[in-house]
Amino acid sequence: MLEALNRAVLSALPKTHSQPDLARFYALIRDYPERGGKRLRGLLLLLSTAAHGANWQQGLEVAAALELFQNWVLIHDDIEDDSLERRGSPALHQREGMPVALNVGDALHVYMWQLLHNLKAFSPAQQNTLLNEFAWIIQRTAEGQHLDLSWVKQQRFDVSAEEYIEMVTLKTAHYTVSGPLRLGALCAGLPPDERLISAGTDLGVAFQIRDDVLNLMPEVSYGKEFSGDLYEAKRTLILAHLFAHASASEQLELKTLLAKARHDKTADDINSILRLIKRYGSLDYAQEIAEARASRGLSLLKQILNELPAQAEVVKLTRLLESLAKRRQ
Amino acid sequence: MLEALNRAVLSALPKTHSQPDLARFYALIRDYPERGGKRLRGLLLLLSTAAHGANWQQGLEVAAALELFQNWVLIHDDIEDDSLERRGSPALHQREGMPVALNVGDALHVYMWQLLHNLKAFSPAQQNTLLNEFAWIIQRTAEGQHLDLSWVKQQRFDVSAEEYIEMVTLKTAHYTVSGPLRLGALCAGLPPDERLISAGTDLGVAFQIRDDVLNLMPEVSYGKEFSGDLYEAKRTLILAHLFAHASASEQLELKTLLAKARHDKTADDINSILRLIKRYGSLDYAQEIAEARASRGLSLLKQILNELPAQAEVVKLTRLLESLAKRRQ
Repeated sequence: MLEALNRAVLSALPKTHSQPDLARFYALIRDYPERGGKRLRGLLLLLSTAAHGANWQQGLEVAAALELFQNWVLIHDDIEDDSLERRGSPALHQREGMPVALNVGDALHVYMWQLLHNLKAFSPAQQNTLLNEFAWIIQRTAEGQHLDLSWVKQQRFDVSAEEYIEMVTLKTAHYTVSGPLRLGALCAGLPPDERLISAGTDLGVAFQIRDDVLNLMPEVSYGKEFSGDLYEAKRTLILAHLFAHASASEQLELKTLLAKARHDKTADDINSILRLIKRYGSLDYAQEIAEARASRGLSLLKQILNELPAQAEVVKLTRLLESLAKRRQ
Repeated sequence: MLEALNRAVLSALPKTHSQPDLARFYALIRDYPERGGKRLRGLLLLLSTAAHGANWQQGLEVAAALELFQNWVLIHDDIEDDSLERRGSPALHQREGMPVALNVGDALHVYMWQLLHNLKAFSPAQQNTLLNEFAWIIQRTAEGQHLDLSWVKQQRFDVSAEEYIEMVTLKTAHYTVSGPLRLGALCAGLPPDERLISAGTDLGVAFQIRDDVLNLMPEVSYGKEFSGDLYEAKRTLILAHLFAHASASEQLELKTLLAKARHDKTADDINSILRLIKRYGSLDYAQEIAEARASRGLSLLKQILNELPAQAEVVKLTRLLESLAKRRQ
């Protein structure tokens, strides 16, 4: 399934051009998609298609488009956050410069839509529904990204837990969980269960909080730099909890430390923040919220999935959702 | 017609949101579209729709989408070129920061497609043709932009006339002339004349060269900074001609001057370049090429348009094409 998905992703992209500079452009368009990745969202979509009673192949191009979405968004996110690396290699804009990378992301965005415009397996009405679902997901993701970026711009570190949850619901949860599950239903020709959005939001939020927690656990090796989120001053539920409980003077200290540029932060700075996080139990708090959200989301999802036609496929889908909820890396 | 087009552009965009930060995001999405502009491409499309025998209203949403394309591309172009102003106000990224502006451009891009996905006036097959035409136009534009940006990245100033023409054909001509004319035919339910691409390319290239020429004519007031293109070291046909004719030592001098950062360039630097341009007649050369291209393009376009059903409308379309070919500002 993963192999077919990888093939579908790459075959939606242009391969070569007689003009060398444009051949190079096409290679850049293929760069992030060729770096691989877990293809988590595409696989969720395919398993959801199967669980809704269709062949998973029915959802293959739509799953590939969802992966292309992830890839162009990552190119642009990496520019916006000035990230250094992506999947073990330099971020595209670090290697090619920001202008070239931005334009490559735009081109990849268009190839995503072109794939969706020329789906073979659906009626015009189904295709229209799929297109509107995609636009809805991407618009919400951009809205969540805007909240996050506008806090960065305002140098606001003391966001509340509610603000954080709203941001990650928009930015991560829709396109990571409820979106793929809903798209899978649509690919199988069924209307998505209305409860998928709230259940998927719970699980997606848990997934993101868990990501934030793992980043601050030195004993976990999950491929990202330990405490990188503190160096980047990323807004997390951990910091939201900490700001809500720290004293006024500690809040001031935190803001000063977080506001430093990434390369100006010392190991001592990071340790000071980690000590405060420990003092107020903010990591444990975030972990508990993640577990509660994951458990509530999973339990509702299982109810929904129990009503679906293809129960043998539901087992596989549930397994993937559980691993996503509990993610250890 | 212009008023209806303006309304169609703005009504495709989100208006308000109960969450203040997202209401602000929506205002940013509407920012460039609300700044107005000539709406040249949208109007061309509407006149082409009418000339092909349909009511121009039939093309209104497609014309609005083409204007939205122009607007999200301008947000991203302004970031890529680090432009200071757009339509008399600061460029979006100058006011909001690059990350926020980049994300606003992505959101606007999605609203463009959403408008095209929900056209009322067309059959599914017609809509599919329109969508593929749009994707084709945007991909070519991105390819032209890549050529331009990769020359900037490589600090290549000595591009040949052929390379320049290839770049502006991709980057400007398709979406400015042949694209709107072809889309107008499709909106009227007719297959576009195959000669529209070459005729539109001639006219679009002339339009761009004329833009470059006007920038170096001090007596022309057309809303952009005199010699701004030299400060920005923009690749133009004028420079292509100059590099092809200057001596080796002059080429070296030119490269040194152009390679300086914008704010390091002095008036003397610019005057040195202008003197060389004058010595080799590069401005006159570019002007002649623009006139020859415009005249060849217009003459072929008139042939094509003479065969169309609505000759009263063809008169209006021809007038707009002529003003575009001769642009004095």
